[in-house]
Amino acid sequence: MAENHSLELLVQALRRLPGVGVKSAQRMAFHLLQHDREGALHLAQALQHACAEVKHCTLCHTFTEDEICPTCRDVRRDRSQLCVVENPADQSALERTGAYKGLYFVLMGKLSPLDGVGPRDIGLQKLFDRIDTLVDGAREVREVILATNFTAEGETTAHVIAQALKARGVNVTRLARGVPVGSELEYVDLGTIAHALVDRR
Amino acid sequence: MAENHSLELLVQALRRLPGVGVKSAQRMAFHLLQHDREGALHLAQALQHACAEVKHCTLCHTFTEDEICPTCRDVRRDRSQLCVVENPADQSALERTGAYKGLYFVLMGKLSPLDGVGPRDIGLQKLFDRIDTLVDGAREVREVILATNFTAEGETTAHVIAQALKARGVNVTRLARGVPVGSELEYVDLGTIAHALVDRR
Repeated sequence: MAENHSLELLVQALRRLPGVGVKSAQRMAFHLLQHDREGALHLAQALQHACAEVKHCTLCHTFTEDEICPTCRDVRRDRSQLCVVENPADQSALERTGAYKGLYFVLMGKLSPLDGVGPRDIGLQKLFDRIDTLVDGAREVREVILATNFTAEGETTAHVIAQALKARGVNVTRLARGVPVGSELEYVDLGTIAHALVDRR
Repeated sequence: MAENHSLELLVQALRRLPGVGVKSAQRMAFHLLQHDREGALHLAQALQHACAEVKHCTLCHTFTEDEICPTCRDVRRDRSQLCVVENPADQSALERTGAYKGLYFVLMGKLSPLDGVGPRDIGLQKLFDRIDTLVDGAREVREVILATNFTAEGETTAHVIAQALKARGVNVTRLARGVPVGSELEYVDLGTIAHALVDRR
């Protein structure tokens, strides 16, 4: 296929998608060209359109097509609570629960020292600036809920943010660790049970 | 994210790629928008370019940007042998061996009655027309080598083609089944060993 320049370029371009190796990229390219050219052109348009339209909300940093995202604009939301999540998918999971009525701050990443991702790369300063913003001479945000993932990186991120905010005298909470709803203790990992015991109420 | 129209459209468009579900599509969209907008635009261009440029070779049916692909144009190749493969990736694997100097016919699919893919869908008639083409009053193709995959569908495809070609009096062969190079018998599946025994030479 060395002579087939545009097919080769398409395979290379598809490999830039996360989780796509050379075999999958080839399979995708063959599939699109053989069975779904309409889908390929549709995808090309969607990519160009999204790159042109999608930017970050100036308040919460999530993806939005406006200057300020609809969640931050919503006057019915409680502006004294700020929930910190890693990415828009996590935010959307929290939203679907319907149990949270405050605002969000989307880090768009997580601290990962091993991969060279430090506080500057995920824009922690922007979060601190947001929290320090004064409305009528007082901080608008009264509680910061850390909802980063319960992975090593997510816990590190939560820890670093918590330290910085406590130094500022801000009230910081973390999502509860415990036994997932619907699970049988027998099959829950021991770390989770230990946390659930300590945090019992 | 219901309000985020272009992001939603991008996720939908990515889901049309084979093997990509809603979670992977979201991950891809977030990754491209957050870390690799250049790659996203690059992919959009590659898709449009490939859709505009890549067509099928009129002789062997593989993907090419020309009327006739470079392999079919190559005068040094043996025009009396025709190797039938399922897709360009298989063709490229055979090419990389350097052991075959004849021409190819790429089915761009395989018979799969359970999925409703019949002889017409993979254009078998085109293969038969190609084989029946007379040059100076005689068939140019003297041997058809069936190199479809050794899966259920590939074997069915090979069987159907073999039957049709034998009825035409064409010499048909199949890639040898046997023990893969470098393998220990102990770990080879029994069907393969049985075939290797029967086809011993």
